[in-house]
Amino acid sequence: MTQLVKVQNFVVSQDGFGAGEDQTLERPFGHADPGALFAWAGATASWPNRTDPGGTRGLDDYLTRDFAHNIGAEIMGANKFSPHRGPWENHDWQGWWGDEPPFHTPVFVLTHHERPSFTLSDTTFHFVNGAPADVLRRAKEAARGKDVRIGGGATTIRSFLDADLIDTMHVAVSPVELGHGVPLWKSPDELLDRFYADVVPSSSGVTHHLFWRK
Amino acid sequence: MTQLVKVQNFVVSQDGFGAGEDQTLERPFGHADPGALFAWAGATASWPNRTDPGGTRGLDDYLTRDFAHNIGAEIMGANKFSPHRGPWENHDWQGWWGDEPPFHTPVFVLTHHERPSFTLSDTTFHFVNGAPADVLRRAKEAARGKDVRIGGGATTIRSFLDADLIDTMHVAVSPVELGHGVPLWKSPDELLDRFYADVVPSSSGVTHHLFWRK
Repeated sequence: MTQLVKVQNFVVSQDGFGAGEDQTLERPFGHADPGALFAWAGATASWPNRTDPGGTRGLDDYLTRDFAHNIGAEIMGANKFSPHRGPWENHDWQGWWGDEPPFHTPVFVLTHHERPSFTLSDTTFHFVNGAPADVLRRAKEAARGKDVRIGGGATTIRSFLDADLIDTMHVAVSPVELGHGVPLWKSPDELLDRFYADVVPSSSGVTHHLFWRK
Repeated sequence: MTQLVKVQNFVVSQDGFGAGEDQTLERPFGHADPGALFAWAGATASWPNRTDPGGTRGLDDYLTRDFAHNIGAEIMGANKFSPHRGPWENHDWQGWWGDEPPFHTPVFVLTHHERPSFTLSDTTFHFVNGAPADVLRRAKEAARGKDVRIGGGATTIRSFLDADLIDTMHVAVSPVELGHGVPLWKSPDELLDRFYADVVPSSSGVTHHLFWRK
């Protein structure tokens, strides 16, 4: 069985930004409103953060339901883990996700600043420095034959795309314009030389772009 | 967590038939060509019967990949299990699926004709007689908290729909006309009084109809 490298449920604005500018502790997506970007996902029955029962079980739910399917590790950029820049002043910050992170696997955080690994529930965070191919090698080993998720942000996904290390990618384009921010692409058509693509509009207003390697 | 009752990857023709007429050992779908009905699924990377590597990883693959997700038991009609009609002459026939059936759970076969349970690999077939609600009770117990798949054929799905026991339903409408056969519906609109629906055309030529209870 092939061990795939996957992007799943990554959300960008209509104009291709994965987040706004000026990330802070209070605004993990900078000037962008994550409620607007992620409304489609939050409405589904399988959204990991759902607290009330119910939720939709149509097309969008297939996408959120698939999030953990056969995933053995995640790689994320430093800004997905923390609003902090530069060397760690202390190790109090443990990510945005509380005591039960939604990953349930080893997570490799890309950073130039060393920090010991730590575990929250069934998620262990490792802090690693290196080229995408090197970090991917470690993540694949940790995944024990299962697939590896490239969790974002946009800059991290770009670096793995540029190194041609991604096998499948699901990007949901939300009906929101940001104007500026952290870009994933100018247009999804940039990827069509290397990937097949399905473009699937959803009744929720997002359009799902599903890529797989040619 | 709710224990759902689900129809997954059930394929009908453009005119609403799940199979043709005159099922035989050689033609499990009667006069219908299963190759034409199931071409979309067979092309995906996650199709359980796939023997060669490769396959598509777009929209259709989300549907085939989801087939086993949290499923703990299946209920199927007698004609899905066997072309035989009437009392069993012997117990030689063990279904269409060889030594490794793609179910991997208990399977409850609806039949008026008693037969002992048997196991092939990690699938156990039970032969049961009773109203849909009674059989569903047994299947839910066997599923140990996981969901129950109503596996078809069309007549079986209709009887569970008529008893209002189905929570979610995925039907793929293939671009094939059969003219006559075993009907699931005249039109998917018949279900809109009880279900929300997403209608999602795929690049493979099928249209996925995704229903969930209102």
